[in-house]
Amino acid sequence: MEANLDMQMNKALSVQLNQQGQLKHFLTIDELPRTLLEEILDTADSFIEVGQRSIKKVPLLRGKTVVNLFFEASTRTRTTFELAAKRLSADVINLDISTSATSKGESLSDTLQNLEAMASDMFIVRHAQSGAPHFIASQVCPEVAIINAGDGRHAHPTQAMLDMLTIRQRKQKFEGLVVAIVGDILHSRVARSQIRALRMLGAAEVRIIAPNTLIPCDAESLGVSIYRDMRNGLKDVDVIIMLRLQRERMEGALLPSEGEFFRVYGLDEEKLAYAKPDAIVMHPGPINRGVEIASEVADGPQSVILNQVTNGIAVRMAVMSMAMTGQIAAKSE
Amino acid sequence: MEANLDMQMNKALSVQLNQQGQLKHFLTIDELPRTLLEEILDTADSFIEVGQRSIKKVPLLRGKTVVNLFFEASTRTRTTFELAAKRLSADVINLDISTSATSKGESLSDTLQNLEAMASDMFIVRHAQSGAPHFIASQVCPEVAIINAGDGRHAHPTQAMLDMLTIRQRKQKFEGLVVAIVGDILHSRVARSQIRALRMLGAAEVRIIAPNTLIPCDAESLGVSIYRDMRNGLKDVDVIIMLRLQRERMEGALLPSEGEFFRVYGLDEEKLAYAKPDAIVMHPGPINRGVEIASEVADGPQSVILNQVTNGIAVRMAVMSMAMTGQIAAKSE
Amino acid sequence: MEANLDMQMNKALSVQLNQQGQLKHFLTIDELPRTLLEEILDTADSFIEVGQRSIKKVPLLRGKTVVNLFFEASTRTRTTFELAAKRLSADVINLDISTSATSKGESLSDTLQNLEAMASDMFIVRHAQSGAPHFIASQVCPEVAIINAGDGRHAHPTQAMLDMLTIRQRKQKFEGLVVAIVGDILHSRVARSQIRALRMLGAAEVRIIAPNTLIPCDAESLGVSIYRDMRNGLKDVDVIIMLRLQRERMEGALLPSEGEFFRVYGLDEEKLAYAKPDAIVMHPGPINRGVEIASEVADGPQSVILNQVTNGIAVRMAVMSMAMTGQIAAKSE
Repeated sequence: MEANLDMQMNKALSVQLNQQGQLKHFLTIDELPRTLLEEILDTADSFIEVGQRSIKKVPLLRGKTVVNLFFEASTRTRTTFELAAKRLSADVINLDISTSATSKGESLSDTLQNLEAMASDMFIVRHAQSGAPHFIASQVCPEVAIINAGDGRHAHPTQAMLDMLTIRQRKQKFEGLVVAIVGDILHSRVARSQIRALRMLGAAEVRIIAPNTLIPCDAESLGVSIYRDMRNGLKDVDVIIMLRLQRERMEGALLPSEGEFFRVYGLDEEKLAYAKPDAIVMHPGPINRGVEIASEVADGPQSVILNQVTNGIAVRMAVMSMAMTGQIAAKSE
Repeated sequence: MEANLDMQMNKALSVQLNQQGQLKHFLTIDELPRTLLEEILDTADSFIEVGQRSIKKVPLLRGKTVVNLFFEASTRTRTTFELAAKRLSADVINLDISTSATSKGESLSDTLQNLEAMASDMFIVRHAQSGAPHFIASQVCPEVAIINAGDGRHAHPTQAMLDMLTIRQRKQKFEGLVVAIVGDILHSRVARSQIRALRMLGAAEVRIIAPNTLIPCDAESLGVSIYRDMRNGLKDVDVIIMLRLQRERMEGALLPSEGEFFRVYGLDEEKLAYAKPDAIVMHPGPINRGVEIASEVADGPQSVILNQVTNGIAVRMAVMSMAMTGQIAAKSE
Repeated sequence: MEANLDMQMNKALSVQLNQQGQLKHFLTIDELPRTLLEEILDTADSFIEVGQRSIKKVPLLRGKTVVNLFFEASTRTRTTFELAAKRLSADVINLDISTSATSKGESLSDTLQNLEAMASDMFIVRHAQSGAPHFIASQVCPEVAIINAGDGRHAHPTQAMLDMLTIRQRKQKFEGLVVAIVGDILHSRVARSQIRALRMLGAAEVRIIAPNTLIPCDAESLGVSIYRDMRNGLKDVDVIIMLRLQRERMEGALLPSEGEFFRVYGLDEEKLAYAKPDAIVMHPGPINRGVEIASEVADGPQSVILNQVTNGIAVRMAVMSMAMTGQIAAKSE
């Protein structure tokens, strides 16, 4: 599946949009036009206000059935989607597929078509296999709006968009920004989506900072500058995006030790001083304090880590409501 | 418990209905009058339309508390009841009793009376023991509406009723219909309910098709024709109901092998050709492709398998709302 | 943590109340003024009526996000809070923290601050560690209303308040009442809260009845009378509160055997006869029949055990709605 991923992705645009160019699935930000990314950010901005209301609820998905299909456990991501769906007034069903339905020997596509026959409107899909949400959207259940909640090493597009929202809130625009992404680029499902979004939205330069062993072999083609030295890489940047060290994914000896990693690539106040004085510090969470980031920085005045969490709910509400609208329009095409 | 089941069932009618003859529990379709079965089908028909609305929600159970009491895990069945309850606007609590409450040494009836004292309105009960939902309805919590979601080998009445709804949608009426039920009759909690419902609703003939080892010893008394040869049994039938091969329930060597079973009792296009050209093919799911049914038939034009799933939500909404109404009326009797 | 608990508790009052003296967290009933305890009982009384309505729902927490944070599994307690929150129209998220979020190495306070950043309004906290809910309310997430659902041996204040509500329903007032608490005082998280509440609300005498091994060493200072002999202790009491024998918490040989315990401290009809003829019998559940209470008493006319369960929902609705109001007021102070 990994092999024909690029070919699949070329068809992603037509899969994700209806004939009017509205989002009907949200699988990847690759190929999405800049105007659509900006529409997502603008819509999310309007939902930020909902989270501050006394009654945090809008009726946009009232009477819709949203199914959390987690083939890979992730309590944190599931919770954010569940909260977003409930604030849109949807009915939410949580299915932990890894432990249940398929145990009776039913095929994946039979399980999904059964859920579709129950008049489900939206699947939130998390899967260890790259391309799984795309396959479901294009082949199995094209009439159900599919939202990618992370697939293999491929993409985690709502995470990338909440990062973009956070940057825009603090820096107003992307033009002229220098952004550094630091850490385990190789195993990150977010980094590719971030690079794509930053370039599409007009960032001046995207740098990746990592040891050789954690840089993907096709990094050059992504249009980024590559740094092995963190102090050089952070010089005069506007935004620092720290990645999580995915300890559970590392195979063998890609790294010497956590202590050694922190010494060279961990963000502390000394290294942070190389960035612009008003640079912001981001991290997708959960944080490994003292491994990729020092507590003084994570809790410091330049950190926007908790803003990212708040924005995550708003971005998920945005793509869910937009995809539902586009999917409904597609059915009457 | 299995021993006095028949005696218990004779009292089922008075347990299931209030003094006006309205449903107040839904435990089994045995003894229910034909008019009530037809009322369930008519009510379900009206809920089919709700599933096609933009806002799939009616306020019939608003402010009611529905507890899913699953003493035996079944994600699929639980999900359909949870969805049906939410579309009726109920508050739903899921309790996996097999793993939780009784672990502190509390008796079953204490657990249930506690839930009743919390002002629960309805229990959806799944239990490995035949008669358990009936026992709860008659002895433990008679003021809570009890819906049987499958008990031992005894009954799975909402499954049988969704099958009846699917047949009526396609064939308009039951009079004159010849229906074949194929496969593991012996271990099926659905087959008995189906036979009962088909005869009550006026089907001309019900055939069961199975090897000797999978035919219950009291089959003659059920008023069905028995076939060991599938081609003979399918000749000129209007409806084919395939049963699931309950591999997890089979004890010892009742069957030679799955491949051999498929050769003799699996439904493929060749055997299907013996039925009427407009015969419909049904299966309760989850499907074992290539064991009891070929993919070409399961996905073919005569298959109504996914319609059954859609109808399952509507039938569950129907019996839940009817039993709630009848239970409330019973309290003021 | 256990060591500075008293010091912490001295600050509890200022933590629990806002500047107008309204509840904003509900952590312990220690130090709460009598008027506030009575306000909780009066508010709960009004919610009793909601549980008897056809539509058991009030919009007081509509659009609020309530997170059940159970660091220690308790299906029963979680269910009562989930039901109470849903009847207040809140959106509820269940998090079983013991098995999930912290598995990726995130610290507790990071997990909680993430949930706060998602605009959660209330945490229902169950924790094996005494003082944990207080620590969260005072240090980690002071802007989220925290409700203690049981912490270590320290407190279980909603349980104590539902007991008070039950006593007041049956006895109208606390003045002049003699109340006996029987059993495992030492390991009980409820007994301390009960003693405190009973004295604050004006009960004439509180007796504890237990073997030496199950009496806490500071019992004298609690202002109770201590009895080793149950018949003496029950003489002329108005209320008997049986405690659950926490078999899972007992370490080593504090007790001879369950049979021996029942003979000496189990409540049967013979011992019950020593109390006043209209004495009521209470138990927090789940009941160990034949260990601390005989079935004839648990199911007898003096038992109010199921009323306690009903009152539990009303009391939880009361403290949740009151704390939400007080927390919102505190934010605008």
